[in-house]
Amino acid sequence: MNKERLIFLTNDDSYMSKGFRAAVELALEFGRVVAIAPDRVQSGMSQAITINSPLFMREVEAPEGATIYAFSGTPVDCAKIAFDHVFAERKPDLVLSGINHGSNAAINVMYSGTMGAAIEGSFYGVPSIGLSLDDHAADADFEGAVKYGREIIAAVLAAADRLPRPLCLNVNVPRMAVDDIRGIRLARQTRGFWREDFYARQDPHGRDYFWLTGAFQNAEPEAEDTDEWALAHGYVAVVPVQTDMTDYGMLGHLSNVIK
Amino acid sequence: MNKERLIFLTNDDSYMSKGFRAAVELALEFGRVVAIAPDRVQSGMSQAITINSPLFMREVEAPEGATIYAFSGTPVDCAKIAFDHVFAERKPDLVLSGINHGSNAAINVMYSGTMGAAIEGSFYGVPSIGLSLDDHAADADFEGAVKYGREIIAAVLAAADRLPRPLCLNVNVPRMAVDDIRGIRLARQTRGFWREDFYARQDPHGRDYFWLTGAFQNAEPEAEDTDEWALAHGYVAVVPVQTDMTDYGMLGHLSNVIK
Repeated sequence: MNKERLIFLTNDDSYMSKGFRAAVELALEFGRVVAIAPDRVQSGMSQAITINSPLFMREVEAPEGATIYAFSGTPVDCAKIAFDHVFAERKPDLVLSGINHGSNAAINVMYSGTMGAAIEGSFYGVPSIGLSLDDHAADADFEGAVKYGREIIAAVLAAADRLPRPLCLNVNVPRMAVDDIRGIRLARQTRGFWREDFYARQDPHGRDYFWLTGAFQNAEPEAEDTDEWALAHGYVAVVPVQTDMTDYGMLGHLSNVIK
Repeated sequence: MNKERLIFLTNDDSYMSKGFRAAVELALEFGRVVAIAPDRVQSGMSQAITINSPLFMREVEAPEGATIYAFSGTPVDCAKIAFDHVFAERKPDLVLSGINHGSNAAINVMYSGTMGAAIEGSFYGVPSIGLSLDDHAADADFEGAVKYGREIIAAVLAAADRLPRPLCLNVNVPRMAVDDIRGIRLARQTRGFWREDFYARQDPHGRDYFWLTGAFQNAEPEAEDTDEWALAHGYVAVVPVQTDMTDYGMLGHLSNVIK
């Protein structure tokens, strides 16, 4: 244990989730922990920020070595107030976001509040890891996520000085008994997107409502270098994430179209 | 006017914003318009989706040739219900998101609900344009955004058959008199990120609150091929957007670190 290290912890399932509590214990193995996590579920909040309303923070109970704040903002708000207010004097050595209840592989990286916060943390030059388990259940078994999360955190901290910045990892752990997990694979983001099948009903007052429900359409299920393939075959998938969304290939196609 | 065309319109400033009304008029020049826009301001909502609550839609007043629905979801929810429910029988020919009050250049592409909806629309194989004006004012002058938006929409529709998919454009228009705008530049996303300066006060009940306020830190202000440079020099910036966030360069660095 290196108690000199400082770990910033956040997530999107709120400070009350089982995955968050598992992450607190995991992060404490690596140093002192300061956590700022949403005070309610903020799943699917992506890179959302709160522009038009004030935000409130309160300290909640924490194990020794950790300080935990519940914050009324989005996951990205949590990362922003951590780096631009709480950590004004000393930057943390690592950002850990999670452990998320549910996979953030493939295009989920864009919808995920967990990954939103991890990405935001990486902007500040600190290695960031978003850690997710492919199981949405509130009482999911985080043993595999903790074991492989520990391994990946240790590797990143050991190599931090020689890895470029920004450094952000999207780590997804398959839902299986820890001993059945076959190891870790570096991967790229799987191509594909969600098609929704809106659940349409009437509320007790006779008003129509819609509820989002859908399924991921994997555009390349056979591609062995993707995160979805890794998860489907019992591996932990690690995808490094960057935020230049420019479609460089399209720039060439557009040069004769838009002048 | 080609009344056979179908344009899907959305935004993040709500169906009541001046920019949205300007976009309705602009879109009507190109065909029939079906709009599904948030029923309240959803700025900064990024790619957020609503997972845990039902969503409500109601039709609101619209000019001839247009149908406008106010929806209680995020901008991405608007795009999803459009494609997976409303447009089940016929896909639109174009997605237009905006006209946004405020620039979505550089890393703003990731926080913007306007761009979130445009990106989501592009997943369905339809050319998508997010159109934004670098002016947050509620009564901003959209003349330049309409003029150059028209030009870009016409060019994209004319070339749609020979451009690959997904096709998503992030179009940002400088805040200046229309005649002072110097033209259009294809550009890449500027590197940089926002540093926040949280405004901290006490509410009437003595509770501390925080309010997000910050400034964009341009990491490459001299780079003439960027969207921020174009805007700062009086050009409309057009950045094609893609959603593979894999950091391919980092994969190489990690191969000896994570095994």
